[in-house]
Amino acid sequence: MSPSLVTNGDVAAVKTSPVSGRFAAVYSEVQTNRIDHALPLPSVLRNPFKIVDGPPSSAAGNPDEIAKLFPNMFGEPSAMLVPNGVDSVGSDQKLKIGVVLSGGQAPGGHNVISGIFDYLQERAKGSILYGFRGGPAGIMKCKYIELTADYIYPYRNQGGFDMICSGRDKIETPEQFKQAEETAAKLDLDGLVVIGGDDSNTNACLLAEYFRGKNLKTRVIGCPKTIDGDLKCKEVPTSFGFDTACKIYAEMIGNVMIDARSTGKYYHFVRLMGRAASHITLECALQTHPNITIIGEEVAANKLTLKNVTDYMVDVICKRAELGYNYGVILIPEGLIDFIPEVQQLIAELNEILAHDTVDEDGLWKKKLTDQSLKLFDFLPQAIQEQLMLERDPHGNVQVAKIETEKMLIQMVETELEKKKQEGSYNADFKGQSHFFGYEGRCGLPTNFDASYCYALGYGAGALLHSGKTGLISSVGNLCAPVEEWTVGGTALTSMMDVERRHGKFKPVIKKAMVELDGAPFKKFASTREEWALRNCYISPGPIQFAGPSSNAVNHTLLLELGAQA
Amino acid sequence: MSPSLVTNGDVAAVKTSPVSGRFAAVYSEVQTNRIDHALPLPSVLRNPFKIVDGPPSSAAGNPDEIAKLFPNMFGEPSAMLVPNGVDSVGSDQKLKIGVVLSGGQAPGGHNVISGIFDYLQERAKGSILYGFRGGPAGIMKCKYIELTADYIYPYRNQGGFDMICSGRDKIETPEQFKQAEETAAKLDLDGLVVIGGDDSNTNACLLAEYFRGKNLKTRVIGCPKTIDGDLKCKEVPTSFGFDTACKIYAEMIGNVMIDARSTGKYYHFVRLMGRAASHITLECALQTHPNITIIGEEVAANKLTLKNVTDYMVDVICKRAELGYNYGVILIPEGLIDFIPEVQQLIAELNEILAHDTVDEDGLWKKKLTDQSLKLFDFLPQAIQEQLMLERDPHGNVQVAKIETEKMLIQMVETELEKKKQEGSYNADFKGQSHFFGYEGRCGLPTNFDASYCYALGYGAGALLHSGKTGLISSVGNLCAPVEEWTVGGTALTSMMDVERRHGKFKPVIKKAMVELDGAPFKKFASTREEWALRNCYISPGPIQFAGPSSNAVNHTLLLELGAQA
Repeated sequence: MSPSLVTNGDVAAVKTSPVSGRFAAVYSEVQTNRIDHALPLPSVLRNPFKIVDGPPSSAAGNPDEIAKLFPNMFGEPSAMLVPNGVDSVGSDQKLKIGVVLSGGQAPGGHNVISGIFDYLQERAKGSILYGFRGGPAGIMKCKYIELTADYIYPYRNQGGFDMICSGRDKIETPEQFKQAEETAAKLDLDGLVVIGGDDSNTNACLLAEYFRGKNLKTRVIGCPKTIDGDLKCKEVPTSFGFDTACKIYAEMIGNVMIDARSTGKYYHFVRLMGRAASHITLECALQTHPNITIIGEEVAANKLTLKNVTDYMVDVICKRAELGYNYGVILIPEGLIDFIPEVQQLIAELNEILAHDTVDEDGLWKKKLTDQSLKLFDFLPQAIQEQLMLERDPHGNVQVAKIETEKMLIQMVETELEKKKQEGSYNADFKGQSHFFGYEGRCGLPTNFDASYCYALGYGAGALLHSGKTGLISSVGNLCAPVEEWTVGGTALTSMMDVERRHGKFKPVIKKAMVELDGAPFKKFASTREEWALRNCYISPGPIQFAGPSSNAVNHTLLLELGAQA
Repeated sequence: MSPSLVTNGDVAAVKTSPVSGRFAAVYSEVQTNRIDHALPLPSVLRNPFKIVDGPPSSAAGNPDEIAKLFPNMFGEPSAMLVPNGVDSVGSDQKLKIGVVLSGGQAPGGHNVISGIFDYLQERAKGSILYGFRGGPAGIMKCKYIELTADYIYPYRNQGGFDMICSGRDKIETPEQFKQAEETAAKLDLDGLVVIGGDDSNTNACLLAEYFRGKNLKTRVIGCPKTIDGDLKCKEVPTSFGFDTACKIYAEMIGNVMIDARSTGKYYHFVRLMGRAASHITLECALQTHPNITIIGEEVAANKLTLKNVTDYMVDVICKRAELGYNYGVILIPEGLIDFIPEVQQLIAELNEILAHDTVDEDGLWKKKLTDQSLKLFDFLPQAIQEQLMLERDPHGNVQVAKIETEKMLIQMVETELEKKKQEGSYNADFKGQSHFFGYEGRCGLPTNFDASYCYALGYGAGALLHSGKTGLISSVGNLCAPVEEWTVGGTALTSMMDVERRHGKFKPVIKKAMVELDGAPFKKFASTREEWALRNCYISPGPIQFAGPSSNAVNHTLLLELGAQA
């Protein structure tokens, strides 16, 4: 029998909760199937456990300053869940817990919340989970909903943050901390889970410190979220959402690679989300083998200029032309411009000139630029020059974020190739095609990895709160093993911190984890990129699969960092 | 046991041919699994069959002119394969067949070729299949390769056209027909399969006419290819690639919908590939339920202006703001501008002015525009005005294709909302975010539907050639039933044709199938779009699945057109 290719009419299904039969949402078949996808749990969470503390922790840098900033939290040991004959964690205690999503979306956020909820249901019956709406502002304004089985059900294994939405506010001023305190008191909160990136987790720790300093019972646990992949350390091997986002981008990159090879006439310039670090670009390169990949951290380390980057591209394009390949795929991190010192310098000078001087039509104003900046300005395509001169943010600054780096590079490469054509050293047609893959990756359905990882992070966060822990980030490890062998615990947020001097004051920060040029992922990339440049080793990962042989693959970055891949 | 989330090291696998053990390519796990995906065949192709001719055919329009242009082909009956006790088709005959891919890529092209090849292997042993390289130019230059089991194997069920590549050349002049004849003679071709869109199939029929007129043995069969979905008729219910491309775009649209709902602050303007017809946009709307969808055919039928389109968007955005929704998703067909008469008029006037007059800085040149065009020009955002004035193609014409419609509409909506804000009738923040989904959809891994449909189209084309047919397009029908019940046959290409007058001469054309405003897909869309506009009925289809419950779904357009969906 051949399979039928026909669905039962509409692919959208109305999903109703098995708990109450309540109408949930109109979903696609894939979404519907994902809701009931059974999530595996690490075995330590499926059985009775106790918590074992490690030795006192320190800080990632300047421990003395961190100790001053966090007198109550500094030195907090890491916590590890280990199997125990009987549950040692306060079994009869009912908890009131709040949860908040902070910052940009990452696939899996809903599963963290499901994990917390299920922990409370299964291990602390009668507990209540509140979801603060719209990010940290929801805490300050005490805007929340009680999360019930019915309410959570349709969001299980779904992408997005729409269950309670997110926001970018920060709890910073003494008044804001006071507001948070009032909310905690009003809801009688035993604990709060902050799901966010580096800033939000720093904020979570400040809140933990504040509550402990005031002898309040509310404890705070963080969870590592960001598709950028730049919140990680030894105990927290990856941030959730990175796996899914990279696979969505890699699907699209793989498709344009086949397009490039089939038509034989386009260079696809693909800009990828990730402003601070180039992890996404590196991971996508490892998954797809593009001809050219620019890693911001390497550009910065080698103090490359925009001309250097352009020349590198032009060099590869010319060599490929000699081999008969007038097509290719080039990956560029969103934040590239921020990694190039000369561009930063030019922008600073332009901001200064535009704030204080008039810009004359004859270009006399250009004389105020330093030689290096003038040279760079003249090297830029006219459209970019205009963008730099015209578009301002409300503070009068040039809007770097609005510069479409991939289009700028296409124009610069075009100009240089034209020169080479006239010199006779290049004799082909160059057609650049620009792409930006960003928003479509932040809200996809989480991969099996992200779905399971988030569920364990949330379930573990519940366990940490239940056992009285505060100021920790939920930490799930041994991620190369099957899920049941994953380790679960918490890491002192202060141990991930350093200080930065801002406005004459020390500020605690969790340093963003940048691409390490001596790390395994970059080294693997560097060892093969020359082959990728000239031969066509394209790999097309295809769409994310939720069932079948490729559905449980883990991203290369994580596997390489954990030493699971040669 | 919980599933392991770890792969065996690298997700890339080296796939070797089971025939010769020859190294094939470096593939992702999903690609690798797809190679060996078993394709179902319609039962009529799995058993002995005979060909039954229908009544003589006519033309889609102007049959007298078509009859003059195709004296040998006109009236050709359609052919239908029907089960037969024994194979009536020339069983011992060995064939020499050529195949060519023409025009833009569409997922499934490789499967058409595999289908032809397998037909020859199974039903006409000892036959030879040649692949012409780089499109019709390969026929004219006699650039080909012999397609063997080994050669074809790694391309089975894979996206792209890279097996033999494609091209956009046409066989038009008497010299070019002569070249095609020489190639056919040199390779002793019994038949040629042309896989292409409306133009390529018209060309295929001209070639069939030419060969028959010269009493040559080479027969020509077409296959309906285009992601745009605008090559179809009663006998050819859909063109291949449309299903896959729409599902890839719908995945991305579904993701940005969840992004919109989660952040609550963006209007995503999504431009979708499809220059001539808006089928892709309509299908994606049916799959995802966006707040606003612009269908070019409706804009043209109602003679809407750009201001009308902008006002419609502004109206929905204002109404949504009143409901508290300051976000949304808007779909726009790539070819929108071509559907707006006033824009065409303005561009024609600008071309005229720019060719003959100087454009003065003070704008006196504008006086040469008609009132209506001047009004439109002044209504356009400055960036678009500049684009219209500056960018020319080699013939001095404004490059409409380079206008980023989605960005233009964002600017126009922004301007109108700003006015409303000052009037006090709108009081929210509008943030437009632009997307273009195009190239990433042309080369994806074909869905199960496209994979099976293409395989049947190719297998059927083999059968038609084997039974001596020419001037037909391979036609697979009853597509709402399980694959085994699909019908297989051929439709006279002349029956799909009309004539157009070009340079004073009648030219045969297969008219593009536009979105019918009284057709089922548009009517379904029109009946619910008001609800979609104000309520949030978003559906996120998720990534294409190759296994499991949602893997065999067929696109809405086809189901609705075939009456299989209410």
